[in-house]
Amino acid sequence: MGPLDNQNHDDHDDECHGVNFSSQRPFLAKFKSGLKETFFPDDPFRQFKNEEKTSRRVIKGVQYFIPIFEWLSSYTWRLFCSDLIAGLTISSLAIPQGISYAKLANLPPLIGLYSSFVPPLVYAVFGSSRHMAVGTLAAASLLIGETIAKVCSPEENPTLYLHLIFTTTFVTGAFQACLGIFRLGILVDFFSHSTINGFMGGTAVILILQQLKGIFGMKHFSTKTNVQSVLKAIIINRREIRWEPTVLGIILIAFLQFTRHLRNKNPKLFWVPAIAPMTTVVVAGVFTYLVKGQKHGIQIVGHLDKGLNPLSIHHLNFKSAYLPAVVQAGLITGVLSLAEGIAIGRSFAVTDNTPHDGNKEMIAFGLMNLFGSFTSCYLTSGPFSKTAVNYNAGCKTAMANVVQAVVMALTLQFLAPLFGYTPLVALSAIITSAMLGLIHYEEFVHLFKVDKFDFVICMGAFLGVAFISMDIGLMISVALGVLRALLYVARPGSAKLGKLPDVGLYRDVEQYKTSTFSGVLIIQLGSPVYFANAVYVKERIMRYVRSEQSKGEVVEYVILDLSGVSAIDTTAIKGLDETNKILVKNGIQVLFVNPRLDVMEKLMASMFVEKIGKESFYLTVDDAVMASQYSLRASKTTNNTEDIITIQDHA
Amino acid sequence: MGPLDNQNHDDHDDECHGVNFSSQRPFLAKFKSGLKETFFPDDPFRQFKNEEKTSRRVIKGVQYFIPIFEWLSSYTWRLFCSDLIAGLTISSLAIPQGISYAKLANLPPLIGLYSSFVPPLVYAVFGSSRHMAVGTLAAASLLIGETIAKVCSPEENPTLYLHLIFTTTFVTGAFQACLGIFRLGILVDFFSHSTINGFMGGTAVILILQQLKGIFGMKHFSTKTNVQSVLKAIIINRREIRWEPTVLGIILIAFLQFTRHLRNKNPKLFWVPAIAPMTTVVVAGVFTYLVKGQKHGIQIVGHLDKGLNPLSIHHLNFKSAYLPAVVQAGLITGVLSLAEGIAIGRSFAVTDNTPHDGNKEMIAFGLMNLFGSFTSCYLTSGPFSKTAVNYNAGCKTAMANVVQAVVMALTLQFLAPLFGYTPLVALSAIITSAMLGLIHYEEFVHLFKVDKFDFVICMGAFLGVAFISMDIGLMISVALGVLRALLYVARPGSAKLGKLPDVGLYRDVEQYKTSTFSGVLIIQLGSPVYFANAVYVKERIMRYVRSEQSKGEVVEYVILDLSGVSAIDTTAIKGLDETNKILVKNGIQVLFVNPRLDVMEKLMASMFVEKIGKESFYLTVDDAVMASQYSLRASKTTNNTEDIITIQDHA
Repeated sequence: MGPLDNQNHDDHDDECHGVNFSSQRPFLAKFKSGLKETFFPDDPFRQFKNEEKTSRRVIKGVQYFIPIFEWLSSYTWRLFCSDLIAGLTISSLAIPQGISYAKLANLPPLIGLYSSFVPPLVYAVFGSSRHMAVGTLAAASLLIGETIAKVCSPEENPTLYLHLIFTTTFVTGAFQACLGIFRLGILVDFFSHSTINGFMGGTAVILILQQLKGIFGMKHFSTKTNVQSVLKAIIINRREIRWEPTVLGIILIAFLQFTRHLRNKNPKLFWVPAIAPMTTVVVAGVFTYLVKGQKHGIQIVGHLDKGLNPLSIHHLNFKSAYLPAVVQAGLITGVLSLAEGIAIGRSFAVTDNTPHDGNKEMIAFGLMNLFGSFTSCYLTSGPFSKTAVNYNAGCKTAMANVVQAVVMALTLQFLAPLFGYTPLVALSAIITSAMLGLIHYEEFVHLFKVDKFDFVICMGAFLGVAFISMDIGLMISVALGVLRALLYVARPGSAKLGKLPDVGLYRDVEQYKTSTFSGVLIIQLGSPVYFANAVYVKERIMRYVRSEQSKGEVVEYVILDLSGVSAIDTTAIKGLDETNKILVKNGIQVLFVNPRLDVMEKLMASMFVEKIGKESFYLTVDDAVMASQYSLRASKTTNNTEDIITIQDHA
Repeated sequence: MGPLDNQNHDDHDDECHGVNFSSQRPFLAKFKSGLKETFFPDDPFRQFKNEEKTSRRVIKGVQYFIPIFEWLSSYTWRLFCSDLIAGLTISSLAIPQGISYAKLANLPPLIGLYSSFVPPLVYAVFGSSRHMAVGTLAAASLLIGETIAKVCSPEENPTLYLHLIFTTTFVTGAFQACLGIFRLGILVDFFSHSTINGFMGGTAVILILQQLKGIFGMKHFSTKTNVQSVLKAIIINRREIRWEPTVLGIILIAFLQFTRHLRNKNPKLFWVPAIAPMTTVVVAGVFTYLVKGQKHGIQIVGHLDKGLNPLSIHHLNFKSAYLPAVVQAGLITGVLSLAEGIAIGRSFAVTDNTPHDGNKEMIAFGLMNLFGSFTSCYLTSGPFSKTAVNYNAGCKTAMANVVQAVVMALTLQFLAPLFGYTPLVALSAIITSAMLGLIHYEEFVHLFKVDKFDFVICMGAFLGVAFISMDIGLMISVALGVLRALLYVARPGSAKLGKLPDVGLYRDVEQYKTSTFSGVLIIQLGSPVYFANAVYVKERIMRYVRSEQSKGEVVEYVILDLSGVSAIDTTAIKGLDETNKILVKNGIQVLFVNPRLDVMEKLMASMFVEKIGKESFYLTVDDAVMASQYSLRASKTTNNTEDIITIQDHA
């Protein structure tokens, strides 16, 4: 770790000061590596592409694309017992959630039950996550209903509305599958944690307000979801409020929250809140039946038919009048449910150290929604609460989803009419209780503490969803995120470096106590250096120089540390060239330190290196500083003893 | 420059392995510095804010905001002589260009002449560039005409059309001034060199095609500008082609190109192409008059009134039917003319080492267009050709623009009717010749060689403008640029590092011949680590690990070099946390090296450092490698002698 030896200081073709000028890669290699990094960063085919035998490769390939073949061959009775318990637990959650979330989308309750039969089966075949429990999502249900209701009223034309929802599900499925097949998971990456948190919180707020309809037993309500519309609707229709459902609702919410409290106290009781919704439905249903609640304003779900999912493939409706709304709803809910589902699958995969493949998950979600749209289901994904219950109940494989599907099939075939007696207020209580758990105050506080811009992104989603509408809130938040990314590119961080005492290292003078050299200014540039910041980088360098000069320092060398610059473009190279020209005109020499591979390739190709001269490039900051100090010492009488000592230490 | 001494290896509060954990800045300081970097990177008020006397500060402030006060006080007769010559030269260019570019925007020729009177005067007062020559722009003229013609036909309702153009100019001016005042030059930064080059090239192609109307002496032509429409129009109306203007046009173009050739041979003859357009106009006018060209199909400009600019402030028309088109044209041409004007001003400022302030230029451009819109002018900026002529003619200050304005005033007052005899074919020849110089083939080739993505951005503008329309071409190109910036953020470069032989330095193994350590994998992360790449960064790290393992290496330590990471957000911190968890579960320890100031602040605030443990952070890669090697050696019998030697070399 001594100073760089000087053996390479001669100016032969490939090297100068040890800097490698000759490692250009051919275009195709660069292009291929760029494509790989963009679309295949996880190297998905590694499992089978290196197999030598073709038969093995085919088997591995099939196992890769259809994960059920991977785990089913080694499936055991012991695993099944675990999956059975988990499957039964999520089924008890699936029935009340299916009915209530379907109501959020203005759909018949049966559609919600149908959606817990076919999609879990499809996911069990194609899904790669072991913990995912498939089901409908509250937020997406509300959003899909809100968007489709704009072009077709669910009250006036329920059949058309239903068909449009199936079509939306089809669009969602096709879109998700395409994202997965074309490896466009990159789009989902633009939904940050902050966006999802804010969106979930905002949705929870408006969902809770929506439930006031059921809890107050009101008949008229706002069709809009934002806070001010709902509050206005409640005030206008306040005479419809009945005390009976209100009291029942409050008791049920208290019960549900209490079961959750129990689980928080003792995590082993995870099954108590898991079966609480089912208990609520049964108890409230029996109670309402006994006290003839309907006469006291306690509304019930109403008649439900027996039977499995009817086919709906012939109902898909692509008429141009509805298509824009259908596509809009399909795309937004598609991305949204992916973002949530994938994030959840990933977090459990991390906890359990099991594999997880985002792009494969997209294909599975897509297929599940495609098949769903053919069999009277609407949008499904992996909701957080259900997946957490599944995980806690000890599920081992996607078989838990098969169990869920079987239970749901039996329910549909034999028990469906019974669930017609479920009081609406019980469903409202279930949703309210679920949503209360989704407003993460502490997460908002955390964001505020750690990163103010993330907090703004989160609040954009939260307030946008609560006070404007769900899709606009989401877009505001994503736009803020993109703006942040662009601002980063437009204003990359830079720092003035100084030398750490005793060590041959250069660090930010603001961060560490360092010593500087008179006449030499060392600047570390941020990354990338791009068209969007070419002017800024120039101005920033000039400002560093001026700020030195205003302190009375004479700047004779500017050393630009490019170590951290991982990309550059032609506009920026032109900018660097301009900067160099201006500095040289002002009698300041510019030295460049350690350009990385990609950057060096472009600096060479654009003749920048040739113009500046290879001798201005150094491998380390220390080399450049030493070189500048030598020539400063050579050019004038020494007036700074300390510097000389520093040099001698290293020479 | 020996190895880091171990005196700081105890775990006290602020330091561990010499890493500084305690330099958090208060939020306000960070916010202020962020605002400054975003909007005031050039520290514009430095000129006067440090003055001690209030009176001095006021004077300096006025001089800053109104640059004429700065240079007029020291203006000399000698400077005026230079400016007079330059001013006369650009005037001789301004008259034919003014008339021809006005025709491009379907405007009366007089408007073009008016536009070279008032705006140069305004610029002379507020402009900060010494070389800028104010005038109309060919591309912007065509674009403004194309956009406004969509809502109002220039043939059917010329008065309304004219008023809408004034309104567009007003919008442009207001927009440009606002951009300058609110320091939003950052928007202009998103027009890269590649975009501007492609746009200019594409515009030149369609402008040349447009001139075929004048050169062929045709009466009917396409109202659209794209290549296929124009060629179709020529084929359909081919019977209108007259040989007389065609021959005259070819001769004139040959003459103009020849003068340019002369200048290229001998740069001192810069004035030859500068006065060539005026010569063309005069000679062709006299010739046409003598041979009674109008009878032979050589059309002329027609009657021109005497007199200075009439007021037009009462003609501004903000009716809602036209407003969208007016605003669209105003914003696009506004940004475009700024991008061109500022780039040109900057490049001459660099050549001459004179100051140049982008945001001040925007205000000057804005005011010049605002005043212009009140006095019957349309969009003006600093066109490249005129500014280059001005520079070559030896202009010293903005006084050259005053001279231009005076000459133009005299022309308008006394000579205007004479220019009515200018043949249209002469104007077409002037534009064609000017445009031939704007297609930079060699620049396209250069982009292709240096940066393929830049080439695509450039071609997006070029082909989009040529084959679709000017605004769409421009938007395609800017969108590609933004996509590129976002892709960069989504997929920042990373590299595997190895140790350079003999030197204590770590560099990319692909770029340099380095040696690696068994059991230790060193990864340099790109910047930023953000929500958009949180998943990618995780996948990438896992891939590096797998690729080592597939080579048969056992990875026990992953060292993440964060030196180059200049920003991080909460989603990414969560991602790093997940990565750490997964690696630890697989028996791999993660060490972090040298987080920068901003990054460390967030890692501390989010409790990441606390969770991971301060002892996992190192100041240099070498420290981390040594620590890992020590503990590897301690934990097992030595099986790699070379590593031990390496360690002993440095211990």
